[in-house]
Amino acid sequence: MSPKPKTKNLKPLSIIKIGGNIIDNPAELAQFLIDFSIIEGDKILVHGGGKSATKMAESIGLIPQMIDGRRITDAAMLEVVVMIYAGQINKNIVAQLQANFTNAIGFSGADGNLIQSDKRNHLTINYGYVGDVKKVNTELLETLLSNGIVPVFCAITHDGKGQLLNTNADTIASELAIALSEVFDVTLNYCFEKPGVLYDAEDDSSVIENINQELYSKLKVEKAIHSGMIPKLDNCFNSLSKGVQKIKIGHHRMLQDKTSLYTSIEL
Amino acid sequence: MSPKPKTKNLKPLSIIKIGGNIIDNPAELAQFLIDFSIIEGDKILVHGGGKSATKMAESIGLIPQMIDGRRITDAAMLEVVVMIYAGQINKNIVAQLQANFTNAIGFSGADGNLIQSDKRNHLTINYGYVGDVKKVNTELLETLLSNGIVPVFCAITHDGKGQLLNTNADTIASELAIALSEVFDVTLNYCFEKPGVLYDAEDDSSVIENINQELYSKLKVEKAIHSGMIPKLDNCFNSLSKGVQKIKIGHHRMLQDKTSLYTSIEL
Repeated sequence: MSPKPKTKNLKPLSIIKIGGNIIDNPAELAQFLIDFSIIEGDKILVHGGGKSATKMAESIGLIPQMIDGRRITDAAMLEVVVMIYAGQINKNIVAQLQANFTNAIGFSGADGNLIQSDKRNHLTINYGYVGDVKKVNTELLETLLSNGIVPVFCAITHDGKGQLLNTNADTIASELAIALSEVFDVTLNYCFEKPGVLYDAEDDSSVIENINQELYSKLKVEKAIHSGMIPKLDNCFNSLSKGVQKIKIGHHRMLQDKTSLYTSIEL
Repeated sequence: MSPKPKTKNLKPLSIIKIGGNIIDNPAELAQFLIDFSIIEGDKILVHGGGKSATKMAESIGLIPQMIDGRRITDAAMLEVVVMIYAGQINKNIVAQLQANFTNAIGFSGADGNLIQSDKRNHLTINYGYVGDVKKVNTELLETLLSNGIVPVFCAITHDGKGQLLNTNADTIASELAIALSEVFDVTLNYCFEKPGVLYDAEDDSSVIENINQELYSKLKVEKAIHSGMIPKLDNCFNSLSKGVQKIKIGHHRMLQDKTSLYTSIEL
């Protein structure tokens, strides 16, 4: 499937997803938030969780539930992730962005019914309180952005029936990007600890600057791309096929440093 | 000081503050949120904390810091109240309101720079990370309300320099009421476990239906009003003198049941 044809010139929108490696390092996070504040135009930040939810769970004596190597969100763990993601991490990011003169508002998907999910109904694994995104409230996001608000999303959504749900932050970023690509020219940026997708995981200078579907298939066969990078890239190609204009994967320095390498994903 | 003269017919706005007695009782909270959802017109909810912050602090081994009988918010306790108030309590309330078809967004004062505070600078007591409200972002609240949003505030503010601060929920409700009384006809409702201010604390039928400043002075001399009720009522008279139209104190059933008693505060 090729990208939806754009019928008019849409306003640019940057969606930036950061993960645990930034969240867990206060100095790195502060620097990122300065860089993020400087980005011109409409923008949205999506943040993952980092290690503090696991630490908190341990300190109150919760035992992480795993089935087939997958983390299960039981009721007690949901309480912890809501506290940490929507409370501690989200509000501290928002306060720092305000100090950088960026008018951020922190959101879970329940707020303004911005991201509604279905509780995952898997045939063999009961993931617990995990949500798969169903609907993004594009209209309210447009209103907020047009009022100069910078939305900051944590990885919590809701089912519309009163239940909060744990949702993958990469998925939240891509679902926002897909929904908003109807009304914006969206660039989706995945920031992580590496400078991009690497040919050789041990060599940071081996950034693959452009990956299209053909190369992606080839790299998978060669096993140059494997494990955690596969769902990430599948997710990227899915977003592009659904209208997202541009996707970049790399270290957050790519947001400011125009000489910095990163991986550009294209169909 | 008499209330500011209103130069035109302003739109009504209900501000409702609920405290720990409702927060700590899930069935009571669910019923309140249904009643709250039915209230017509523009409305704002402000919630206190309840016992879960104290419970969480205990379970992670924090020892509550008290000086002269006053609770001190040290850095570790601030982390806990941010998690519990802005995370757990706020997001669960928002998700329940969404299930009631009320388009709530949960806020700390950092979000949208809605409530900025100064860290309390007391001569003899170091309260820690406690904020006294400095400025309410009336303009953004008006925009949100005019877009059908129901703001839900927890008792966390920020100093505009990146620091979150613990702030009294009654004060947040009254400062919002004062600021918004410039542009709305504000009724401020304080909901608590009693049906109103009582002549006799042991007799729930002894509700004082109207208290003005003259009666208040008399009741203080008679010691019919004492301890915790004095700062509450001082706060009320301060709000009325600064333009708030109407203040009610009572059980939350007063919001729906028109035959229910409550205390009306007037200048």
